[in-house]
Amino acid sequence: MSEIKEFESIDGALRQLPKDDYDRVRKILYGNETHDIEVCEESKELASKYNIELITCGFNCRDEQLRSPKVVRVGLFQHKLVPFPTSTPIQEMKYALFKFANKAVRIAARGGVNIFCFPELWNMPYAFCTREKTPWCEYAESAQFGPTTKMLQELAQIHNMVIISPILERDEVHNDSIWNTAVVIDNHGDYLGKQRKNHIPKAGDVNEAIYCSEGNSGHPVFEVTPTLGYSLNFIRNNLQTEYGKLGICYSRHHPLNSLVFGLNGAEIVFNPAAAGGAANEPLWSIESRGAAIANGYFACAVNRVGTEIFENDFTSGDGKSPHRDSEYYFGSSYVTAPNGTRSPGLSRTKNGLLIAEMDLNLCRQVKDQWGFQMSHRLDLYAELLSRATRSDFTPQIVRKACKQLN
Amino acid sequence: MSEIKEFESIDGALRQLPKDDYDRVRKILYGNETHDIEVCEESKELASKYNIELITCGFNCRDEQLRSPKVVRVGLFQHKLVPFPTSTPIQEMKYALFKFANKAVRIAARGGVNIFCFPELWNMPYAFCTREKTPWCEYAESAQFGPTTKMLQELAQIHNMVIISPILERDEVHNDSIWNTAVVIDNHGDYLGKQRKNHIPKAGDVNEAIYCSEGNSGHPVFEVTPTLGYSLNFIRNNLQTEYGKLGICYSRHHPLNSLVFGLNGAEIVFNPAAAGGAANEPLWSIESRGAAIANGYFACAVNRVGTEIFENDFTSGDGKSPHRDSEYYFGSSYVTAPNGTRSPGLSRTKNGLLIAEMDLNLCRQVKDQWGFQMSHRLDLYAELLSRATRSDFTPQIVRKACKQLN
Repeated sequence: MSEIKEFESIDGALRQLPKDDYDRVRKILYGNETHDIEVCEESKELASKYNIELITCGFNCRDEQLRSPKVVRVGLFQHKLVPFPTSTPIQEMKYALFKFANKAVRIAARGGVNIFCFPELWNMPYAFCTREKTPWCEYAESAQFGPTTKMLQELAQIHNMVIISPILERDEVHNDSIWNTAVVIDNHGDYLGKQRKNHIPKAGDVNEAIYCSEGNSGHPVFEVTPTLGYSLNFIRNNLQTEYGKLGICYSRHHPLNSLVFGLNGAEIVFNPAAAGGAANEPLWSIESRGAAIANGYFACAVNRVGTEIFENDFTSGDGKSPHRDSEYYFGSSYVTAPNGTRSPGLSRTKNGLLIAEMDLNLCRQVKDQWGFQMSHRLDLYAELLSRATRSDFTPQIVRKACKQLN
Repeated sequence: MSEIKEFESIDGALRQLPKDDYDRVRKILYGNETHDIEVCEESKELASKYNIELITCGFNCRDEQLRSPKVVRVGLFQHKLVPFPTSTPIQEMKYALFKFANKAVRIAARGGVNIFCFPELWNMPYAFCTREKTPWCEYAESAQFGPTTKMLQELAQIHNMVIISPILERDEVHNDSIWNTAVVIDNHGDYLGKQRKNHIPKAGDVNEAIYCSEGNSGHPVFEVTPTLGYSLNFIRNNLQTEYGKLGICYSRHHPLNSLVFGLNGAEIVFNPAAAGGAANEPLWSIESRGAAIANGYFACAVNRVGTEIFENDFTSGDGKSPHRDSEYYFGSSYVTAPNGTRSPGLSRTKNGLLIAEMDLNLCRQVKDQWGFQMSHRLDLYAELLSRATRSDFTPQIVRKACKQLN
């Protein structure tokens, strides 16, 4: 996809259409109207100062009789590696990325964000394409006690913000094993838990199976209940804040993975990614959005941006010449509501922050309206899946030998 | 969505973009390039004569060393009710639709189509919006021995074509029960079997739960093996023809449904639909395509077109005034390859036939390339789904009461 690296975004291109056509195309492609949300000037100024694209979007939801609105703002941050080469010493690279993260979280905080999410392996190069173990494995750190978590705990506390931090995890307790893991830090800076990536890709430059194993942390939903922090934040930002039930679903290629977060009650599911390449890009706007629709939650797809250049040549298993550049990570982070309505996407080329405001009551409203959960037939599928895993599985096939034509 | 009834198609609107932008947008939205396929002049002339939009599309696939290409052409037919009112006597209405179907199948046959698929309940008004039982239940007929199947068996034999015919089924053997059922007729005109709709929608004007029960026919995959018919067709059309393993998945809202057709080995899955309304349209290009991507098969989404006007007022359960018009069925039938590449869509407003040519070898090629089936973890999900159906199910939730801020 190198030939279209400079192409900014689908949204931008569509705006060239005649107004009427744009409106129709937008409606069919993106769903319901969304509304503007207010973000204070300081947030915008900081974003402009740090050269971070800032896009905002509010999803509509009706008021209910018995439940108060549960309004929450999420921040999806997408970034290139800082302008350091991938060979930068690890400490230095992490420190530079910490500094940048600090700025992004500050912009988000001024923008009223309650839950902030980084892309997959946000604090390091996506080095799996090289298949080299050194020095990349040295980036791995303890989910609970590592320097990245420690740094973000401070930020989370200062800004009263839940932070989701997808990193490379080193589990010293379990034989120094390595995992692709999202750490969840609550709005008081406490470590709440982690989600290990459940499905490890086996395609293209995504050689994760060479580094990590399939996650064994299940499909936890993290529930952060505001207490006093709630009221203080309310006063600070003049916003009612909630945190809701959050899931982190790395493996958007697997609808079963997406499903179980829904079954566990998730209201917002984050899909942190390092998605690049021409074959992958058409899938980007389909899979996460499909998960939101099928499971009645908000889905937040957060991607990396840019190309990363490595020191040594590597091959991509596609018969092409050795090279040093990664795939092009196409950014385009976006949010989908449970009714399929989606936000604009962040740029394909730039660092960016997408702030989306949503009322979590929409999840149940859509479930009540569409009723997918009432016609799920889970019992049928539990049995079918169980059957499909057995060695004596016989697919349900209807055959008839064709008669000869006269 | 009445205000945009006249809007022809997304594809058409996008063609107004500057060439470069169009190419980029198309690539990101639709995936890989497709190629033109040859269709004989007679087919085009007939289509033009009968005012049926004809769109063709060929999906690319590489040659393999050990397997010959398995090339197949599918025909997706979308149609409005003939210009008869919905109150037309049933015999008359069916006869008119039979005549029109005859024309469409002829165009398809001249276009080299091997498998032809109608939309859901193609031979009757989509009358479930009225919630009236009379006279609509009288449209139901035997899947195997009814007049529609009989008529299509003749066509299938004449044209050496597999035909999928989604109708309202009356099962006299089982207490006159009614089902939403697709009949599969093989290329020799023999009744091969049927697929009953597995998930019955419970939303909007789609009051199917008032007429039908959830299907009990499982997720059969129909395998039609060409024998002598194969060679004759080869000579006739100068085309290598295959039929492959076919599934019919009505319930595209349910990824589990889509999944099991894949587990049973489907290479082409048809989604016959009667999809209308503004809330539904943004989902149309997501769900069927997501199923193709997740499960490694070709997915064919076939929809109805137009508005249908009924004799009596009915309400839509949305607090709005009684009315006589159905939702607007937005057509836009399309095909997605297992790599996510999709065909253009048929019009939102017109009768149409989409002829798509595909090499079924692409299914396994994509599975080998992406390896989703190798990281499925079905055993894990069989257990999770089974747990989720139990009355003592406890979702996996991580909670921590927040500390008070100092």
